[in-house]
Amino acid sequence: MDSAASTAPPRPWPLRAERPGPAGSGPSLPFAWLDGAARRRAEAGLTRRTVPRPVDDALLDLAGNDYLGLLRHPEVVRAAADAAHAWGAGTGGSRLVTGDTELHGELERELADFYGTEAALVFSSGYAANLAMVTALAAPDEGDAPLVVCDRYNHASLIDATRLAKASGARVTVFDHADPGHAAAALEGARERALLLSDTVFSVDGDLTDVAALAETARGTGVTALLLDDAHGLGVVGPGGRGTLTLAGLRGARDVVVSVTLSKSLGAQGGAVLGPRRVIRHLVETARTFVFDTGLAPASAGAALAALRVLRAEPERADAVRGRAMELSRGLRERGLTVSTPDAAVVSVIAPSRESALAWRSACLEAGVRVGCFRPPSVPDGRSRLRLTARATLDDAAVRRVLDVVSTTRPR
Amino acid sequence: MDSAASTAPPRPWPLRAERPGPAGSGPSLPFAWLDGAARRRAEAGLTRRTVPRPVDDALLDLAGNDYLGLLRHPEVVRAAADAAHAWGAGTGGSRLVTGDTELHGELERELADFYGTEAALVFSSGYAANLAMVTALAAPDEGDAPLVVCDRYNHASLIDATRLAKASGARVTVFDHADPGHAAAALEGARERALLLSDTVFSVDGDLTDVAALAETARGTGVTALLLDDAHGLGVVGPGGRGTLTLAGLRGARDVVVSVTLSKSLGAQGGAVLGPRRVIRHLVETARTFVFDTGLAPASAGAALAALRVLRAEPERADAVRGRAMELSRGLRERGLTVSTPDAAVVSVIAPSRESALAWRSACLEAGVRVGCFRPPSVPDGRSRLRLTARATLDDAAVRRVLDVVSTTRPR
Ligand SMILES: Cc1ncc(COP(=O)(O)O)c(C=O)c1O
Ligand SMILES: Cc1ncc(COP(=O)(O)O)c(C=O)c1O
Repeated sequence: MDSAASTAPPRPWPLRAERPGPAGSGPSLPFAWLDGAARRRAEAGLTRRTVPRPVDDALLDLAGNDYLGLLRHPEVVRAAADAAHAWGAGTGGSRLVTGDTELHGELERELADFYGTEAALVFSSGYAANLAMVTALAAPDEGDAPLVVCDRYNHASLIDATRLAKASGARVTVFDHADPGHAAAALEGARERALLLSDTVFSVDGDLTDVAALAETARGTGVTALLLDDAHGLGVVGPGGRGTLTLAGLRGARDVVVSVTLSKSLGAQGGAVLGPRRVIRHLVETARTFVFDTGLAPASAGAALAALRVLRAEPERADAVRGRAMELSRGLRERGLTVSTPDAAVVSVIAPSRESALAWRSACLEAGVRVGCFRPPSVPDGRSRLRLTARATLDDAAVRRVLDVVSTTRPR
Repeated sequence: MDSAASTAPPRPWPLRAERPGPAGSGPSLPFAWLDGAARRRAEAGLTRRTVPRPVDDALLDLAGNDYLGLLRHPEVVRAAADAAHAWGAGTGGSRLVTGDTELHGELERELADFYGTEAALVFSSGYAANLAMVTALAAPDEGDAPLVVCDRYNHASLIDATRLAKASGARVTVFDHADPGHAAAALEGARERALLLSDTVFSVDGDLTDVAALAETARGTGVTALLLDDAHGLGVVGPGGRGTLTLAGLRGARDVVVSVTLSKSLGAQGGAVLGPRRVIRHLVETARTFVFDTGLAPASAGAALAALRVLRAEPERADAVRGRAMELSRGLRERGLTVSTPDAAVVSVIAPSRESALAWRSACLEAGVRVGCFRPPSVPDGRSRLRLTARATLDDAAVRRVLDVVSTTRPR
């Protein structure tokens, strides 16, 4: 059907100037304010930079979210390559137009089955999944928009989603982090519809909120749906890494919707929303980051599906990552550091100050260990910390090395 | 360093219920309203459904945005597979943490070079790139937020971005579609900072706005930056598909920023923002869909880079796709249909009504040709239409077949 590029003459251009303008043309005034903003960030110690990894990166990585060690698993990588060969490098359009493939459907069925939900819908990222979940379910219905009640430390994508919901009429209130009692108080104003919105495992500190208590709180009102972001729960918490719904006894709940990412435990890219069939149908028809976004690349969908299958075949990976996180936490505490007790894969190590957190991370890096570092505005002032992520495939020597490096480089 | 999964004992769970709840548990009341909403959409003829393609899909596709025929190009597909093998199936984290690779940097340098901008930044989708571009540049600076002036038909991702900008203090006004005079009037209130925000090639009708006039309008105020979404321009418009900046004589402009997607002409997934270095630095440090999103999957970055190189080596592909679009438009008009004169790759064919547009699309599908169909709320009431996209690799027989199928299935 398709052949070599035709050479049919193009249409003359309607625009005035066809020649390139002089380099550096145009006034730079409209962006002059950026220099001041950059200077102020630098003065506050908030400069951020990308640091490209080489392909033969030899660092021991405890900064990424490849919790199960599947990102480079041979079956996962092969599935990515096979999917690109079978389906092409992209999907070519919105899944409502031409971007939908049987591969996406297969991934959705297996994700839903794994979580015990009726249905699932895959997005181009976890960020997009969260925007969809919240905005579509918080949309006004016959003029009436819901109350949205949010944990104070919700992920940026949930916060952006909540801002969009507010712009379309929802009322929004925030409750104190991981405080179901405060959430219940905030829900007292709930009338016909409300949404209770929370991360399960919080990305910075790695603490697991009391999801069962949140579900009880929501149900106490009779009109509240619970929306959860299980990005850091999938593959890590619950029996066999089945996630927070299973853990909290909420499998099959008709009043709960959960989002996940394919970019952490599943080592790929993308996100999904899982829940009752009527919710998923609503997202297909109305969620803007579904309708107006290109479908997830086949390589990412194929990789995530393969990773999910590895996890089902080797459920002990979920135990392993939590066990390794516990060893890191215990070992660092024994060495005198202030460390979180991990609920999942993330271990948080408090730094004396914002500046020392950065210096500490650099020292670890020089010693061959990459760790994360959170500081304001990602975390509240005075709560700067290193963020270490365990991985199911860390061996004993690697754990020992991390303990040595992090403790010997600590700021004095 | 990593070995087989360790079997260290997991930590006991803090949550109450570990057993799965009964299937279908929980009240369904919180989502009861969705059934009414679905019924109202159905009554209005607005039901949408995904239709998964099989891997051996035999349809002639004129619905997707694979304008240059690169989505299945052997070099592009091979690059996707190679990147997954070299770098893994995902990036494992935010590019500010561990998700940045030299592959991303290489892609950014080549994109910037192709567009003639100082720098570029790659995102997980075009949607995410647009959210970043607008929200980061519309952010308040020392309490002062800018005026954002938007074309009425801007893409959903720009509209969402504008809503977020408004939520953080920006003033927003809308001007009539493709009307630089109206934009100028809207900009009269511009004081210290303003942003003029527009698609270049509009996604539904495929019309190219007068970018040079918009640039003049912006410059007339002295304080206005021009932000463009060139999703449908990259690879299609301008000499060798170099996009709208080159076409409009704005190469190297210091007051213009442009976003592109990697999911259309480049056949992959992802997006990018291109512009002055200070703008890109600002996005790296502050854009939420960069800072809090996992880096683009290596397979998608690798595929987009390979596609860009094919385009540079074969610039005639850009002429070919515009030529084919012109042939489709001319042929359909000769057959008595109401058709747009394409500025790029998209050809719009007006349908008598919303219902007949859907039936028309189905009839084309049955005859083996997939076309897009836009109806409210994607387009204003009474402007339902088929959307055909040309592709550089369509041969004469394929063009003839499309003309036959679309004209013989027209609603009477
Ligand atoms: C809690 C949480 N939700 C959502 C996301 C977004 O997912 P993605 O990176 O796949 O877009 C992240 C991190 O990236 C996260 O930590
Ligand atoms: C004009 C325009 N901008 C942005 C996007 C979003 O790009 P992506 O699908 O890569 O997220 C699209 C379509 O998908 C589009 O048509």
